[in-house]
Amino acid sequence: VTDGSAVLGLGNLGPGPALPVMEGKAALFERFADIDAWPICLDTQDTDEIVRTVEIIAPVFGGINLEDIAAPRCFEIERRLRASLSIPVFHDDQHGTAIVVLAALTNALRVVGKELGSVKIVVAGAGAAGTAIVTLLLAAGVTDVLVWDRTGILSRDDDRLSPTMLELAQRTNPANQRGKLADALVGADVFIGVSAGNVLPATALDVMAEGAVIFPLANPTPDIDPVAARPYAAVIASGRSDLPNQINNVLAFPGVFRGLLDARATEISSQMLLSAAHALAAVVTDDQLNASYIVPSVFDSAVHKAVAGAVAEAARATAAVVAGPADPNT
Amino acid sequence: VTDGSAVLGLGNLGPGPALPVMEGKAALFERFADIDAWPICLDTQDTDEIVRTVEIIAPVFGGINLEDIAAPRCFEIERRLRASLSIPVFHDDQHGTAIVVLAALTNALRVVGKELGSVKIVVAGAGAAGTAIVTLLLAAGVTDVLVWDRTGILSRDDDRLSPTMLELAQRTNPANQRGKLADALVGADVFIGVSAGNVLPATALDVMAEGAVIFPLANPTPDIDPVAARPYAAVIASGRSDLPNQINNVLAFPGVFRGLLDARATEISSQMLLSAAHALAAVVTDDQLNASYIVPSVFDSAVHKAVAGAVAEAARATAAVVAGPADPNT
Repeated sequence: VTDGSAVLGLGNLGPGPALPVMEGKAALFERFADIDAWPICLDTQDTDEIVRTVEIIAPVFGGINLEDIAAPRCFEIERRLRASLSIPVFHDDQHGTAIVVLAALTNALRVVGKELGSVKIVVAGAGAAGTAIVTLLLAAGVTDVLVWDRTGILSRDDDRLSPTMLELAQRTNPANQRGKLADALVGADVFIGVSAGNVLPATALDVMAEGAVIFPLANPTPDIDPVAARPYAAVIASGRSDLPNQINNVLAFPGVFRGLLDARATEISSQMLLSAAHALAAVVTDDQLNASYIVPSVFDSAVHKAVAGAVAEAARATAAVVAGPADPNT
Repeated sequence: VTDGSAVLGLGNLGPGPALPVMEGKAALFERFADIDAWPICLDTQDTDEIVRTVEIIAPVFGGINLEDIAAPRCFEIERRLRASLSIPVFHDDQHGTAIVVLAALTNALRVVGKELGSVKIVVAGAGAAGTAIVTLLLAAGVTDVLVWDRTGILSRDDDRLSPTMLELAQRTNPANQRGKLADALVGADVFIGVSAGNVLPATALDVMAEGAVIFPLANPTPDIDPVAARPYAAVIASGRSDLPNQINNVLAFPGVFRGLLDARATEISSQMLLSAAHALAAVVTDDQLNASYIVPSVFDSAVHKAVAGAVAEAARATAAVVAGPADPNT
C-alpha cells in the first residue's frame, strides 16, 4: 500500500507514478517467495483516509506492506493500523531497510573484528528509514548511536526538534553531543547514511576510527560517494547495484512475509525483525565473508528460506499467530 | 468489490464469507479472459465509505466489478462511482445477469418464433438483477413488461413503493395492471424470475400464452421448479447447472471486461451491454439452436472472444475510451 508521497528517492509523485514501483515489488514477492501480492496505490494523502481505507480492504489480505509513504505520516499510519488490524503491518522502507542494514553491519563488524555493543555509530537522516534503523540497532544491543539530520546532531535539549525527532533524540546520543555531521563522525566506527545525495565529501571520513564501516544508502545518489570513500573505510556498502555490497530490501521483505504468512502471524515484533537480520547475516559463511561480500546474493534461494524460517519461528515463539490448524502446505 | 451484503442467494454474510466467491470469480476472469482480477471484500456496509474506499483504491485498476452488494445500496454506489471514476464500473449481479438473460431470451424467441418488440414479459423480483434486466429489455426494444415483487405487481399509483421501485413501476406496466403474480402471468409470453425459491407452483404457468418461455433464475432454488414446469413451457432456462440452458453470468463478465480493457474504455454504456448480449446470442447458430440449447457452453472460447469484440467495438464507437496509442498487445 502506498500513497505515492515518497516514491523511491524521487519525492511526492502520487499514486499513478507509484504504480510501476509497486508492480515491481509485487513481482519480487512472487519471484522470491511465491506470494501473490497486489499493488494498492491510494488516491489520497490524508492520514485518516489512508488508515480507514486499509482497514476496510484488509479482509482479503494476510499482511500489509506499507511502501513509499512519507515520514512522519508513515509512523502514525503504521501505529494505528497495527492497533486496529489482526494481520501484520510492515513498512518496508523502515523495517526492510533496517533488517538488511543490521545484517550487513553484523557481517561488516565480523570483517573488522569489532562488537555491535561497543561501536560508535552515526546515522545520517531521521526519516522513515533512519528511525527504523536506529530502533533496530538499539534492540540489537547497540549502545552508542548518534542521529544527524539537516538541522544538526539530534540532541534531547534541542527545542527546534519535531516530536518525532525529539523522541529519537531521547533514545540516542548518550553523550548529548551537538554539532554538524563532521563533528559526529570524529572517532565513529560506523556511518550509516539514509539522508540525501552527497551530504559530505569522502575526505570528511578521515576523522573516523580505524577499520571504519560506511553505508551511504541514499538513493539514487549515495550520501557519500562510495568509490571516493575507499581510501577512508575498511568496509563500504551502498544502494548501488554496480558496486559490491548492495544493500537491497529484496534480501528481506519476500522472506519476511513468507515467514509471517507461513506462521499465520497476527502482528510483527522487534524480535521477528532481529531474527530476520541474524538469519540473513548467517547466510554468509566465514569462508565467503570478506570486505566486498558482507551480504548474500538475492538470487541465492537460501536467503529467502532462511529469513522466512527465522521469522516464522519467532512468530510462533511469541504466539502472535492465528490459533487453529496450520496451513497444510507450509 | 463486495461488501458481503448479498452473497449469492445466501444473504448478508459479510466480507470473510464473501471472499471464496470473489476468489472464484477472479479465477474465472483469468481462465476465460486472461484478466488479473483481485478480490476486494470491504469491512464496511456504509454506502459513503464504500464509495470513498473504491475511489481511493481505483488508481491501480482498469475497471471495477461490483459484486454481491444488496439493493438498493448497490444502485447508489454504482451511480456515484460511475460519476466520479474514469474507469468502467460494472455490477455483475445486475448487468452480467441482464446480458445473459437478454441473449437467452433472444434465442428462446428464435425457437418459438416470436419478436422481442411484441411479447408480454413478466419479471418477478425488483432487486438488483430484476431492475437491470428490465432496463436492458426496454433498451432492446421490449414494450410490454410487468414487474412483480412481494407486494404485488409494481404500478405507478401504488403509494407503498420505495423510490427505487416507483421509478421501476413508471418505466413498466403500460396497462397499469395491479394484482398478484398469478394475475400478471395471464397471457404472458415470457416469465423471468429473480425473486426467491418456489414463489409459484408450476401449474400457475397454465394461464400463459402458447409457446411460453420461462426463466426461473433464483439461486440456489429457482422461483418455479424448472422440471415440474416442463408441461407448461416451450423453453425453460434456469441457474441450475444440472439442467439444459444454464443462465450463468460467466458467459458475459469475462468477455465484457476483456473488451473494456482492450478498448481502454472509460465507462460502460447500455449500447455496450446490448452489443454483448447480441454477440452472445449469435454464438448459437441456427443449426445448433433448439429449446434445450439457447445459450452456448462457457467452455466455447468463441463466447468470450465474441463478447469482448462486441464490447470493444461499441466502446470505440462511442469514444468512451482513453485517448492515445492503444495497447500494442490487443
